[in-house]
Amino acid sequence: MNGHVYIIGLGPGDQNLLTLEVLSLLPTLTDIVGYGPYVERVEVPNTVRKHGTDNRQELDRAHHALTLAQQGHRVGVVSSGDAGVFAMASAVFEAIDQGDISLKTIQVTVLPGISAMFAAAARLGAPLGHDFCAISLSDNLKPWELILHRLKLAAQADFVIALYNAVSKARPWQLDTAFDLLRKELPTDIPVAFCRAISRKDEHIELTTLKNAKSSMGDMQTLVIIGSRYSRVIQPLSDCNPWFYTPRSITKK
Amino acid sequence: MNGHVYIIGLGPGDQNLLTLEVLSLLPTLTDIVGYGPYVERVEVPNTVRKHGTDNRQELDRAHHALTLAQQGHRVGVVSSGDAGVFAMASAVFEAIDQGDISLKTIQVTVLPGISAMFAAAARLGAPLGHDFCAISLSDNLKPWELILHRLKLAAQADFVIALYNAVSKARPWQLDTAFDLLRKELPTDIPVAFCRAISRKDEHIELTTLKNAKSSMGDMQTLVIIGSRYSRVIQPLSDCNPWFYTPRSITKK
Repeated sequence: MNGHVYIIGLGPGDQNLLTLEVLSLLPTLTDIVGYGPYVERVEVPNTVRKHGTDNRQELDRAHHALTLAQQGHRVGVVSSGDAGVFAMASAVFEAIDQGDISLKTIQVTVLPGISAMFAAAARLGAPLGHDFCAISLSDNLKPWELILHRLKLAAQADFVIALYNAVSKARPWQLDTAFDLLRKELPTDIPVAFCRAISRKDEHIELTTLKNAKSSMGDMQTLVIIGSRYSRVIQPLSDCNPWFYTPRSITKK
Repeated sequence: MNGHVYIIGLGPGDQNLLTLEVLSLLPTLTDIVGYGPYVERVEVPNTVRKHGTDNRQELDRAHHALTLAQQGHRVGVVSSGDAGVFAMASAVFEAIDQGDISLKTIQVTVLPGISAMFAAAARLGAPLGHDFCAISLSDNLKPWELILHRLKLAAQADFVIALYNAVSKARPWQLDTAFDLLRKELPTDIPVAFCRAISRKDEHIELTTLKNAKSSMGDMQTLVIIGSRYSRVIQPLSDCNPWFYTPRSITKK
């Protein structure tokens, strides 16, 4: 008998950013698997078993969820933001792809969520209003040279860049190296936003320029958005924060 | 007296993909402004005035919403998907940026939504599981040469590529030109997905390869996702569609 794995995007933190689809699914699960703090965040009846694990254990976690499903359970694998963006969805499919053939009989459904980058963009204005890319700055799973290569091409393409896993205690020098590279490719007055813990109690946004951006402005909960040469900042006359947006139009030079 | 403009992402279509935040805001509005079919989709009390307009009138629509707000109204500007992605959020900030200084006194709040690309990715598996970019293929607002330049660099960076506005009756040749360019840069066996009307009644997905991809597989409601050289397709042993995912790991060559 085979169960079902649901891969669930919990959004950036605020319960109001959950979808109705996720809210109605959660109480029907038998098990919830994920990184400890995300599992704790989920509000479900006591009958739903919670399996919180450490960070960086994505593939083990995926195997655990698939094993529970093979036992006939309805398993939710939870990620913050959207589960398809540098999160658990890829890990589950990797585990199926690399694992025993019997794993391919398990039903898998992915439920999208509000990603960190779109939640951050909404707070800022519309920085992702034109062509953009998302890059994870972590070299845990890919070579650092490839990250630099992608950053350089992204700058040459003039994409707005959303940087995930931008700051880590284990690799504090990486974000500054990335900024140094981008300063060689782009005008240094373009806006850069450090967006921490969006929609949570300790939300904090710092808007600066590429010239002045430095890694100490962020921490492990910070997403960084780097504008393109067309991005602009508007100073409102209300008591709001400045708006950071990228126009839809690019006229021929 | 100044009102408030709320820029609202309605998600890809299914009401279950709305956030609680959007659902609780909608009945408190006095006016809803947007492209006709999106405005019609919104379920609100009869007291909320609906102002549906034609497509391609984004800037006029933004000005209309801002004028209503200046009259003291609570105006919702609705977009499909996430309003910050090739949608109305940029248009509203552009209108403020270019318009009369008094527009800068208006309160503006952006509410994120489930974007078309993440809804499509969830249906497919996890194609956006690694570094990716989003490019609008429309040359209404930017030069075609810039689009080709960005596509080429995106392929060289080996981003997964989400193509918005990929197919248009007015420019049917563009997507095939884009595929021709990508076939020169990338292995032609990488997966390409045509994702039409995701979460709506007429949802349709076609999974093919870069070699066989052609524009006739899509229409104006189709988002196209082009894998990277690391993307993979898994054939499940259940009656599900194949899964298309991009692994998180890239090992050094």
